[in-house]
Parts: sequence; C-alpha cells; structure tokens
Amino acid sequence: MLQAYTKPSYTGRFIVFEGPDRCGKSTQANMLEKYFTELGKEVVITREPGGNKVAEDIREILLNPDNDVTAMAELLLYEASRAQHTEQKVLPALKAGKIVICERYTMSTCAYQGYGRGIDMETINRLNNIATLGLTPDLTLVFLMSDKYFKERGEYLFSDRLEREDEAFRHKMRKGYREIAAKQENTVIIDADNDIKTVQETVLKEIKRFNII
Amino acid sequence: MLQAYTKPSYTGRFIVFEGPDRCGKSTQANMLEKYFTELGKEVVITREPGGNKVAEDIREILLNPDNDVTAMAELLLYEASRAQHTEQKVLPALKAGKIVICERYTMSTCAYQGYGRGIDMETINRLNNIATLGLTPDLTLVFLMSDKYFKERGEYLFSDRLEREDEAFRHKMRKGYREIAAKQENTVIIDADNDIKTVQETVLKEIKRFNII
Repeated sequence: MLQAYTKPSYTGRFIVFEGPDRCGKSTQANMLEKYFTELGKEVVITREPGGNKVAEDIREILLNPDNDVTAMAELLLYEASRAQHTEQKVLPALKAGKIVICERYTMSTCAYQGYGRGIDMETINRLNNIATLGLTPDLTLVFLMSDKYFKERGEYLFSDRLEREDEAFRHKMRKGYREIAAKQENTVIIDADNDIKTVQETVLKEIKRFNII
Repeated sequence: MLQAYTKPSYTGRFIVFEGPDRCGKSTQANMLEKYFTELGKEVVITREPGGNKVAEDIREILLNPDNDVTAMAELLLYEASRAQHTEQKVLPALKAGKIVICERYTMSTCAYQGYGRGIDMETINRLNNIATLGLTPDLTLVFLMSDKYFKERGEYLFSDRLEREDEAFRHKMRKGYREIAAKQENTVIIDADNDIKTVQETVLKEIKRFNII
C-alpha cells in the first residue's frame, strides 16, 4: 500500500506563483499582497528556496562552486529546505487563517529536477508529498512567456556553450511547466507576454474564480 | 504502482557497521580494513554522515544551535548527504571491485529518525531507497551492548533532564536496532559486551559465512 501524507486542515488560503525566472512572478506577487492588505486581509508573502535560516544555509551549499552536488542530492536538499519552510512558516500562517503567497513551490521542483535534470517524476512527487507533509496549493498561477517574446527580450545570446546549454535547459523546464499545469489541480497558466496591468487583472479574475477571497 | 530503485550491479562487496555510539564500531571497522589489506584486497573505509565536502557542509547545518531544524528537514538533510556519498564514493568503489566498509548507513536513519524521532518507517524506507539509488549492504553487522554493560560503563549519570531524555532516546534507538535487524536481510547482531579480540573473531566468522571474501 502506498502511504502518502494527506492535506492538513487550515482556515487560510495558499496561493503559489510559479514560472521561469524573469516572468514577472515577484512583481505580481507583490501587487497581489498589496491588494489583499488594502482589503484588510492578513497576508504572508514568502519564497522558495528560502524563507528561513536553514534554507539559506542549504542554498549556500547548492551555490558553492566547490560542491559538485549530484542531481539526487540537489533534489533532497531542496526538499529539506521545503520541509523546514512548510512546517515553520507556511503551515503556521495558514492555520492562523492567513493568506500565504509563495513564489515557487513543488511545481518548480517538478520542472527543474524532473524535466530539467531528468529525475523520474514519481520520485519527485513522492518527495514533494513528504516535504510538504501533504500540503498542496489552493491555487497555483503559472506565469509563462512565449518563446518569441523571450527572444525579443534578448534573454538568449547563444554566445557560448554554457548559454546554449542554459537555453536548452530552460526550454525543457518551460515545456515541463505547461505539461504539469495541464495535469495538476487548481492550476492556471497566465499569459505573461501581456503588460503588467493586464496580467494583474487576469490574476485577480482567477483569485475570484477560485474563491480565494 | 510503487516504483522503487533496484539494487545496482557491481563486483565489489559492501559491508556496513551499525550500532549506537561507543559500541566499538570504529575499532572493529579499522581492524577489518587491516585484515583485508593484509590479504591484498582493495578496501575503502568510510562513514556517514560524512565522506565528502557536501556531507560536511550538511553536518554543519545540523550541528548549528541557531538552526531549529524540524524532524523531517533533518531526515531529508541526512538523505541528501547519503545520496552524495553513495553516488560519488561508495558506488564507484564497488563498481571498481573494491570492498567498501561503511560506518552507519540506512539502518542508522531507521533507528534515529524512525524509532528516535517517531517518523513513520515507510517514509524512511522510501527515502533510503531514493538516496541510495537502490544500493543495500551485502552484510550489515550491528554492534549492541547490553543495558547492564552500558550502565556499568557509567554512560548514564541521570544528573539532569537532558541526560534523562538522552537515555530514553538511546533506549528507543537500541530497541530499533534490534527490531530492524530481525527483519532486514543480510544482517547480524554482534554481542559487543565481549572483549575486542572475541568481537573480531565473531566479525571474521560472519565475513566468511556471508562469503564476503
């Protein structure tokens, strides 16, 4: 029998912002926090990897160029950071009835370590379930820009081997975001090609459609 | 369907020494290494948590008193350290046909994080399988001293709350070692009450019985 942690109970709401770097997640997350605050709601805004001292220490290990971290060790380090973040920061806020806005959560791990590094998705899903103690977002908004728009912005210069590898890696991740979003419940793709105001209107529409407030 | 990593193939032999602190593991592991070396065998001796830079960095996080690490984050950090150690040190040596002697491995996690911290054993077994990529020892020797002998050695002074807690924690772990040893394949309990020479004779007897050399 496959044992899995089941979603814990809480009175708050858990919103996750996902998507590749530079897709506008932080801008929109901050605007949504302001929106909720002006409505008199209690909001906690946080992000992964991070949100606490242990996560920062783990991040240092991952970023240290002397550490040739294997793909599986990298995955387990991110999950350790998630376990700490979930249990010490996210869950207590949700149980206190607050709205938690988190930039990056389990979906980022599926995209980066699964689609990017090639670790099988069942292992990743299992680790995500363990690290979150069964917590899943009430709404995941995935910010994606089109390839065309990305190139117009000059993100890819193709000037050396490393950048070409990065481009292929990012392409795999973006494919991953689309495919996971199609399967994952309470998940919506947001067209991030649009201007900030239009994107925010879409975000607020989804917030209402999913009965977040 | 429960997917699990299956044991990788290799031509070496993998021996693990388990048991609580101060049970004589290191002494016996070093004596066995010397025994193999004198027979002309290629031996790698290693230990967990440790054996590489990443593991040392992880150990620092766990030992830092500023880090109030949750039980699940602690478990995931140990497993990250194991993933790195297994893939970078243990498996390459086994694939090169060497004998690997490792102090502490998956069984320690079952005893400490399972019996000690109360994390369910299915989660731990699953994480052990992921972190080891399916590797299991060809022989696990578990060194256990009797309660009586432990007390005669003056390990427990019962002088304050912390020491009493430690005693209860250690007692749970030792119960764990016995129960896991009874279920786990290729595992033998060694009576560590005996003198060093008698214990070594028992170790060598088991090494031969399990066709390690």
